[in-house]
Parts: sequence; structure tokens; C-alpha cells
Amino acid sequence: MAQQHLDPTEPVAGHVGPLTGEALAGYLRAQATEFLRALRLHREGGTAAANGAEAPVDAARALRRSARRISGSLHTFRPLLDADWSERMRPELAWVSGMLASEHACEARLERLLLALHRLSGATVVPAQTVAPAKVAAAAPAAPVAAPDRGNLTVGAAKAGALLDRQLTLARTRAHSTALQSLGSSRFHAVADNIAVLASEVPLVPTAATADLRPLARAAEDRLKDAVTALPLITAGHPYNAEALVHGLSPDPAPHPQDAPWHQVRLLLRLHRYAHEVLRGDAAEVRLLAAGEALDRHRDASEAASAAAQAARTPRIAPATAYALGVLHADQRHEVEAARFAFQRSWQMATVSTS
Amino acid sequence: MAQQHLDPTEPVAGHVGPLTGEALAGYLRAQATEFLRALRLHREGGTAAANGAEAPVDAARALRRSARRISGSLHTFRPLLDADWSERMRPELAWVSGMLASEHACEARLERLLLALHRLSGATVVPAQTVAPAKVAAAAPAAPVAAPDRGNLTVGAAKAGALLDRQLTLARTRAHSTALQSLGSSRFHAVADNIAVLASEVPLVPTAATADLRPLARAAEDRLKDAVTALPLITAGHPYNAEALVHGLSPDPAPHPQDAPWHQVRLLLRLHRYAHEVLRGDAAEVRLLAAGEALDRHRDASEAASAAAQAARTPRIAPATAYALGVLHADQRHEVEAARFAFQRSWQMATVSTS
Repeated sequence: MAQQHLDPTEPVAGHVGPLTGEALAGYLRAQATEFLRALRLHREGGTAAANGAEAPVDAARALRRSARRISGSLHTFRPLLDADWSERMRPELAWVSGMLASEHACEARLERLLLALHRLSGATVVPAQTVAPAKVAAAAPAAPVAAPDRGNLTVGAAKAGALLDRQLTLARTRAHSTALQSLGSSRFHAVADNIAVLASEVPLVPTAATADLRPLARAAEDRLKDAVTALPLITAGHPYNAEALVHGLSPDPAPHPQDAPWHQVRLLLRLHRYAHEVLRGDAAEVRLLAAGEALDRHRDASEAASAAAQAARTPRIAPATAYALGVLHADQRHEVEAARFAFQRSWQMATVSTS
Repeated sequence: MAQQHLDPTEPVAGHVGPLTGEALAGYLRAQATEFLRALRLHREGGTAAANGAEAPVDAARALRRSARRISGSLHTFRPLLDADWSERMRPELAWVSGMLASEHACEARLERLLLALHRLSGATVVPAQTVAPAKVAAAAPAAPVAAPDRGNLTVGAAKAGALLDRQLTLARTRAHSTALQSLGSSRFHAVADNIAVLASEVPLVPTAATADLRPLARAAEDRLKDAVTALPLITAGHPYNAEALVHGLSPDPAPHPQDAPWHQVRLLLRLHRYAHEVLRGDAAEVRLLAAGEALDRHRDASEAASAAAQAARTPRIAPATAYALGVLHADQRHEVEAARFAFQRSWQMATVSTS
């Protein structure tokens, strides 16, 4: 993959200055500024929503986006940054982005599962909000995501949908409250203060001014490539290999261990993309976007499958409900397998186009 | 596909004589002889099994095999045969092969479902009889096909397996009794008598001696090609298209209507293969064997999925059992989808290799 992209002898488009610590500092300042802008928007949105106006629903997404980029850059370019400061910041940034992601994840998971239930019933439903925006802490949780016509469903599918709706709406409401509390906490204020400082002053080590960023970016890429190499890509490239459902009825209630390396690659791909942004100043390599989207889908389907399996463990449900949840679980595990197939395809194409 | 194979200008390997009614008569006599041989073996096997010796388990399969070939040839080459006699024979032959297939189908379905339950539980089990032979009416039903170690299964999977075992073993026992009765019935004796006559004397119409078989064989091939053209092959060629499970939770308990055209192609492919045997004297075109196997798998998975859904409707089952049956149903529907993908691939390859 993109080996020559990071070749130090290759001129890097879009950059006039040298690729030293200053480029990293510029990136971090820009992301910190973006974080503060999103935070302001988010707070105004909260007020606006309380006044009945439309909330700026993208603010939470923008907050997460910049928090992830700052955290990722701190990791990849660690040797160039003040070690104490980096070590302190990273868990706090992880906490912020995790906390902000949770409500949206519950909402998206419910939507995914309700859509699947309708697809599996041969019914087509356009959910109330096709792309559910992240609106954490902006206003009270909205009405249920999809308002499906349950008349088309079997009793089992309808009951399974109602059960998932109840459980995931409860989880979402909890995530919403937690986010609201967190955003008002002194812990969050300390993070925001640190990022406000970062927006003007990046704590580089003295040697950073002349250090080359590229070996560090290349190391991030190598970690990604090594992790991809360890994936069962040959199996994934054979359609209908039935791997993803191998533990579909396993007595072990833990998340599928086979998913973990794929989740890991998803994170490493993200770090590689951010390093690429630092070096080249432009957005991610288009060729890798499809691979990243496949891994997002892999994660979403994996978690949706777990939610269906979890719901099936609810005491005293009807057999028809449990049956529908079983079909749904298997369906989402096949989405997992389909996402692996799609990743394998995109990755091969990305490799071919750069070699 | 194989258009030029049936081109009348092309010399046909393995045949010295002209391709007239006499070739058909030869084929029918050979199949009738084979039927009688298998019937004798079958009866001897029944006695041998009663004496504790090993039964000739392939006899029932051979009986079905020749009954299907006689019936198929009667259909394809109808204009060359005495119409009254043909019309009388075909439903009787269909009855014989259906009756003989039923016990084996129950047995294979149970084995398929138990293996799937183990696969889905992450357990690997070698069933007691990996290739379950047809032993209809040869002896009393054998012990359960697989003797899985249920210790590896969840309670739900184990209970689902036990339920399927009970239901399909009961169905198999009934099919066994029906077959035993049928083979002793005057209706079956009449069929056997007719086939004994066929072994020496084929009721051709007077014009058959000079009639060309090839236009009739080509018509059978055209019916196959037309039916394949009507299949959703483009969808089937996209892996993970999620079509096969579209009605996985449909309130309609009938078999999936989307499967019917594929089942139809399976029958037409069989007729084409038999016509090919009549004309060329050799076995089926190798290139089409994979396509036929994919359609067999399609049928088997489709019926196994129905059996799982059917079992889930048993009153008073535990939710965990119903959940496992839901996962199993979805798994088999994905096997259906995988079989369509495989058929599409083999069919394209067969087309490319002949054009």
C-alpha cells in the first residue's frame, strides 16, 4: 500500500514548508480551534433547542471529530511532544469522544436493527430520519428513530422491534444524561481549557523544530499494514465463507473474539488517515475511504448483532420474539461477513493502485 | 451455452448410428433394465438386512435414478412415443421417485441442520455417517444420523437439535413405512410390470424410426436457457446481496416464492442432462455438473430453512430454543443465497467455455 506516498524523496503536494514539528503544531492548533468552535456551536445549539429552534446537530460530531484527531496525532507523533502533557491528555480525549459517541451509537444501532427487521419481513420502510444525526446533549432525546408500520410484521418481529426499541431507547436516554452531566463537569472544563491552550501553543520538544515527521507517519502506516496482514483476508475474499456466524450460538456471551482484529485495524486505519492529514494537509486518501467505511459497517453490524443476542436473553419473552431476534442476530452477523468481504476488496484495490 | 453441442451438423462422438428414435429406444431399454436390476438388489437387500447383513443401501438411489431418467425422456421426446402410454406412465414414475426420495430427504435434512447447529456453536462434529446413504425400505430406520456431543452447545442449540431430531426422525419413520407399503402395493407392481415390458419393447410411434432427436433435445435446452434468463442472475452474482432472507420473518408461512424459479431451473437442467445422455450416450456435461450441484444445495438449504422455521412454530418451546432456530433458519437462507451465487458462477463459466 501507499508506500511511495510517504517516501521522503517524493515532493509532497500542498506543503511548501518542511515536514517538521511545525507542520504537526499547525495541524494540532487547527484541530484545537475546530474543537472550540464546535463546543461553542454545541452550547448555543443547546440554548437554541431549548428555545424551540433547530439544534446544530453536527456540533457533537465535529467535537468528536477533532478530539479523535488530536488524540491520534498525540499518539503517532508522541516523540515530538512533551511526554507528560501527552500522557495526561490522551485518556481525557478518549473519554470525551467516547462519551460523545455513545448516544449516537445507540440511536444508529436501533435504526439499523429496526430497518433490518423490516427488510427481513419483506416490508419497506423509510425511517423518520434516514441519516440519524448526532444530537447528544443538544436537546432532549427525540421521538423514536423509525416509526414503522407494524401491520406488515409478524407478531414476533413486531415484538422484537418493540423490545429493542425499549432497551436501546433506555440506553440512549442514559447516554444522553451522562453526556449532559459530563459536559458540565469540571473534568470536561479542564479538557476544554487544555485545548484552548493548545489552540495557541503546542508543547513540542526542543528537537521537534528540525525533526522529520515522515518516519513516524510511516511507522503508523506499517502498524496498519502489519495488522491487515494478520487478518484472515483470504477467507474474507471468498464470498459466503460462513465465518462470521461460526460462534452465532456459542455459549460464550462475550463479543465475538474474531471481530477484535478487525476493530483494531479500523483504529489503525484511522491513525494512518490522521497522520496523512498532518503530512499532506488534505483529507484522507480517497482510495482508503471505502476500506474505512467497510470497517465502520463491520463494527456497527457486530454491535447490532450483540444487541439482538442480548435482547434475546431478556427473561420471559415469547418464543416468537426470540425467534425473530435469532434471525436478526444471524442477519447482522452476515453483515459483518459482508463488510469483511468489502474491506478485502477495497484494500486490494488500494494496494493495486499504488504499486 | 452448449448450443453447438446439439448442432445437427456436428458429428456426435460415441454414436455410430443415426440420432433417431432407435437411440431413444436403446436408452429407455437400458434405463428400464437398470431399474429392474436395482429393484432386485433392493429386495435382496431388504432380506439381507433382516438377516443382519449389510443392506445394499444404493439400491433405492439407483431405482430413483432410473425412474427419473425414464420419466424425463418420456417428457422430452414425447412426440416419438405412444401418447397414451406416456401419459399413463409419467405420473406413476413421479410417484415412485417421490416416494423413494422422501425418507432420504428427511435424513439428509436432519443431518444438514444438526451439522449447522454445531458449526454455529463453534463445535466441530463428525457425524456418525458423513454421507448418509439412502436406505429406504431396506431395513428399519437406523440410529439418529449424528451423535453430537451436546456438551459444547448452549441449552438453546441443544434443545433445538433435540426438537429437530424428534420431528425429522418422526417424518423419516413415516416416510419409511409409506415406502415399505408402497413397494408392496399393486400400484407399484403395475409400474414394475410396465418397466419390465419397456426393457424389451419401447412403444415408439411409426415415424420415430426416421425422426431426428436433436430438435427435441434442443427444445429442452432452450426451455432451460429461457428459465435461466428469467432468474435474477445479476443480483445473485453480487455476493451478500441479502436477497434470500428478504422474507425471513414474513408472516406468510408458505415456502419462499423467490425459490420456485430456481427449483424449476433445477428440474429443467436435469431434463437437459438426460436428453444429453440420450444423444451422446455419455454422462452429463461436466461443465454443468457444478451448476446442478449448486441447485441441489439450493433446494436442500431452502427445505432445511423451512424445517427450522416450522420447528419454531411448535407450541410451548423455550425462548432459547426459538432463538437458536431463528439463527439456524437465517443460516440456511444464507446457504440458499450462497448456492445461487455458486450457480451463477458455474453457469457463466459453462457459457464462456462453449461460446
